[in-house]
Parts: sequence; structure tokens; C-alpha cells
Amino acid sequence: MAMDVPRELEFIASLRRLAGDPAARNLLDDAAVIEFGGKQLVLTHDMLIEGVHFLSADPPEDVAWKLVAVNLSDLAAKGARPIGVLLGYGLIADGAWNEAFVRGLGEATAHFEAPLLGGDTVATPAGTPQALGMTAVGEAGERAPSRSGASEGDLLWVSGTIGDSGMGLAIALGKIEGPAALALRYRRPTPRMEAGRALAPLVTAMMDVSDGLLIDSSRMGGASGLCVELELQNLPLSADLLHTVGEKRQTRIGAATAGDDYELLFAAPRERSGRIRALSAALGLPFTIVGRFGTGTGLTLTDGGEPIPLPSSLGYEHRPA
Amino acid sequence: MAMDVPRELEFIASLRRLAGDPAARNLLDDAAVIEFGGKQLVLTHDMLIEGVHFLSADPPEDVAWKLVAVNLSDLAAKGARPIGVLLGYGLIADGAWNEAFVRGLGEATAHFEAPLLGGDTVATPAGTPQALGMTAVGEAGERAPSRSGASEGDLLWVSGTIGDSGMGLAIALGKIEGPAALALRYRRPTPRMEAGRALAPLVTAMMDVSDGLLIDSSRMGGASGLCVELELQNLPLSADLLHTVGEKRQTRIGAATAGDDYELLFAAPRERSGRIRALSAALGLPFTIVGRFGTGTGLTLTDGGEPIPLPSSLGYEHRPA
Repeated sequence: MAMDVPRELEFIASLRRLAGDPAARNLLDDAAVIEFGGKQLVLTHDMLIEGVHFLSADPPEDVAWKLVAVNLSDLAAKGARPIGVLLGYGLIADGAWNEAFVRGLGEATAHFEAPLLGGDTVATPAGTPQALGMTAVGEAGERAPSRSGASEGDLLWVSGTIGDSGMGLAIALGKIEGPAALALRYRRPTPRMEAGRALAPLVTAMMDVSDGLLIDSSRMGGASGLCVELELQNLPLSADLLHTVGEKRQTRIGAATAGDDYELLFAAPRERSGRIRALSAALGLPFTIVGRFGTGTGLTLTDGGEPIPLPSSLGYEHRPA
Repeated sequence: MAMDVPRELEFIASLRRLAGDPAARNLLDDAAVIEFGGKQLVLTHDMLIEGVHFLSADPPEDVAWKLVAVNLSDLAAKGARPIGVLLGYGLIADGAWNEAFVRGLGEATAHFEAPLLGGDTVATPAGTPQALGMTAVGEAGERAPSRSGASEGDLLWVSGTIGDSGMGLAIALGKIEGPAALALRYRRPTPRMEAGRALAPLVTAMMDVSDGLLIDSSRMGGASGLCVELELQNLPLSADLLHTVGEKRQTRIGAATAGDDYELLFAAPRERSGRIRALSAALGLPFTIVGRFGTGTGLTLTDGGEPIPLPSSLGYEHRPA
């Protein structure tokens, strides 16, 4: 990464000063939400850069899938169903790569019922890392949850398991050996579309976990003007992950800071827990309470109830939203 | 340009096979048009790549302006008013450049009343040409003209003057000397928002001239299943342009193939000419008849009524839409 974090945060702060429209949600949310024709239109744009967000050796079909998945994950966090996607594609010299990318795009847009609506294909100078952009458009229900709605005492939940994708990346990089299922979580993330739509009426705040559970939790807390207390022992880890690296504190901290999970992180009052558990059972997708919101600011981490220091990095900081 | 045209056209053809949704307009249009909440939502995405679509030496404020302008120009061609834009920004190491870009973005979004709604800022590897993406969202009136609606006998019109921006680029490159007004047309194009909205109910087809009058006219003809006859002597050229390069056939061919005009190209039945001229007077913007549609296919060029051969390049071919 050529970028130092302060410069990026400064840049985003100056963009924020431009984004005065209420639909922009002060650029603090995963997506813009616009009232249009009496409905809620949701718009999000994410880029993937070769060498930053994907590896040059990643199969192009998987890169296409990931581009669709990370964008749709932002729609899921607003409880929106996809209407379609627009693609920004920097054509590279490797024709077979381009072709395989289109194949993967076709698979993903069909799988998630998010048809390709348009976009732009541009020539890029030889040797340039590939730059991919996608805009996803969706329709939310009556409520499109924001990051900022959590209340004191709300519980913090996360869907699925976390850390698998981070471990999958380590496997893809040849750093460790592990099961193919983990590599698949990295290469083919699954945005939680159905869960997002079903949860939207029940939650006070929702976002996706893209940069790491710790950093994304602290962002939800910050946006809601509350502190977040997170219990490390409650993190939902997969059997594959535990089998690969073993049950220890560092495993849990690694999982909570790895990012690329594309699970849903949401806040809800304690009394809705029964309905949320029933929904989890109906969807066949675990929802796990990992923390709670309190008065104050910042993030507190406990391990078996004992406060522990925060790791030096809470997750990826290079992404604004 | 690292890209050969056939590869790009092949890629777009394979994308087209994915884009079965009617809103995608078969990827043959400037923008996707979606019926949403009883209204017409218009979406477009364009990218600018350093060294391809702008020069490394271009002032960053102007690059930002251009990014907004080229996207809004696609909305103008659908007769849409802007709702807002989403930005995809590859942050570079030059902090002053990033800052100046935000300044230009602020100017453009304020000028065109197209607020920044969201987007993504990503780190890019050092030395990478800058990749910028923008999605513009707009609302069209009852009719959002397509490229494909022209009928036999319709006249082909263009707004403003053409070729100024191409000459401005030559000036910016130091290839020729010329007035600052032409350089400004290249650096700060003006999308025809108001004209687009006013014309939409009167035209049978409309698009913007981004790649060159000849290629864009032939695309409108192709999409409409008609041939286009274009008269070189009718092209609206500015006094600045004529003064800079002189009145000769090559000046007119150069202007018709240079691109980056961001004028409106539209088709209308002959009997609407009076209303179109009245609109031109009301807007203070010239609309000029440059050709007509006939049965058949392809593009025919005449110079003072005499058929002349087509130039080897009709304009930029690297952009799909």
C-alpha cells in the first residue's frame, strides 16, 4: 500500500464537506439512500484495485464475483434488494483474463439477480494495475438502517462466522496451509442479501463487516455516539478456522481484524433477541451477540470478561465507507 | 493507448450478452433508464484514466470538473436532471493534487447541482496512472430519448459548436497555438443539461457527442437501423476554431472526429424544426442541422453536396457508450 492513513482520512474529510445532501448520510454510511418516487433508492460504489484488493494471481472469475459481492453487501446492510449494477472496467492486454472476468460477472449477476445495466470500458496504459469499479443500485424497504442508529444498551450482533476470509487470503498467499473452504470465503464472499432484508425492520443500526469486526464495530459506535464493548470469546469462528490455527487469543484477534468478511453487523434492543434468533433459525444462518453499546466513546475489548488492550490495528483503515 | 479496438469491441459484445435487462438498453445507450416508483431513473457510469482521458499536466480542478461533466452529459442526453453523483477515487501520493481535485469537484457539483452522494476512496500502488470513476444518477421526464429512435427522413441536429475541445487538447499538448477559449472547452466541458431537458419531448433520438460527431452519428444511425447522411459544410464551427486552423475541408473533418465535445446530437422530424429553432433562441444555444436519416445502413459524408470518402477514423473507438 503506497498510502499513509492520515492522508486518506484527510481526503475523506474534505470530501465530506462537499457531501451536504442528506442522502449522502455524511459519507459515513455504506450507501446513499434517496427517496425517489415514494420509494427508497439505495446506491453504492466500490472499487477493487489489483495488488490492493485482489491478487494478480486470483482467478478473474473470482475477482468479478468479489466485485459484485462487495457492492451487494452494502445493499444488504440497508436491507435492499438489488435492481442492478453498473461496471467500470479497465481493459487489460490479457484477453483471456478479460473473457474469464466476464464469465465470472455473468455467474455473479445471475446468482444474485443483479443484472448488468451499463457502465464504461476504458483502455488502460500497459502495465497498469487493474482498476475495477462497480455501482450497485437497490430498493430498500420502509426502513433503510444506517450505521448511526444504535441506542445505549442495544446488543451488537454479527451474522455467520468471521475471520474465514482473512485466513483464506493467508492460504491464497501461501503463508499457511488450510482447507479449501476458507480460501473460498476469500475468493467468493457471500453478501447476506436475504438476511439484510429480513433484519432491516428489527435493527437500530446495520452495516457490513468489510474492514474488520473491531474497526467496523468502532465505526458503528462512533456514528451512534456510543461506546462499544466487545467480548472476544463470543466471536463466531468456524470449525475450519479453529482447526487451522487453533483456539487462542491471537486467533480471535486475528479474525476480528482481518476484514473481507461481508457479514452483517447490527444493533438491536435486547427485547428483540427472540425474534432475531427465530429469524436466524429460519434462514439457517447464525446470528451471534458479540457485544453491547454503552454511554461514552471508543471500543472496549474483553476476553472472558477480563479487559484486554486493543490491538495496534483494528482492521483495514484505507476504506472510507 | 495499449488497446487494440477489436479486443475492446469483443469485450463489450460479451458484456452485452449479460445485459439482458431492458433498462440496460442493450448497453447501446449513454445511460440505463429504470422505471422506479412511477418515475424514470437514469444511471450512468464513466471512468477517466490518466494518460488516456486526461493529461498528467492537466490541472486537477479541471480533471474533477471533466469527470462530473462527462457523466452529466449522459444524463443531459436522456433529458434528465441530476440527483447526484458517486465518486470512485484512486488516492495518489501527491496530496496537493488530491486536494485540488476535491476543490474542483466541489465547484462542479455546486455548479451543476449534482451533490456528492457517496463513493469509494482506495489506495493505489505507487506510480499507477490515476483511475477515476463516477456514477451520475438523474431523473428523466416522461420520455427519456434513446439512441435508437430516429425515423427515416428525420433531421440530425447538433447543439453548440464542435471541434473546439479537440483543438483545445492540441493547444494543451503544445502542438499548436490558439486562444484560451478553446483550451477551456477541453478542460471545462459544459454538459447541455437545460437543453437536454427541453429537447427530450421533441426528439426521436438523442445522445451526447463524446467520441466525435462522425462516429457518434453513425452509432445513432446504426442503433436506429438507418443510414446517416452528413454534410460537412453544415457543421457548426466556432470563430475561434476557424481563426486558429483556417477554413478547409481538413478543419471540418478534424472537428467532426475529434471528440470530447459533450454537445447534444439529436434526431427530429422535419416538422418540428420550428419549435427546435425557437427553443434554441430561448436558450441562447445554437442548434444546427448537420444531416438526415435515410433507409439503409452506414454513414455518408458530403462536402457542399459532393460525396467524399470517410476518414480512416471516425472518432475515438475505445468507448462503448
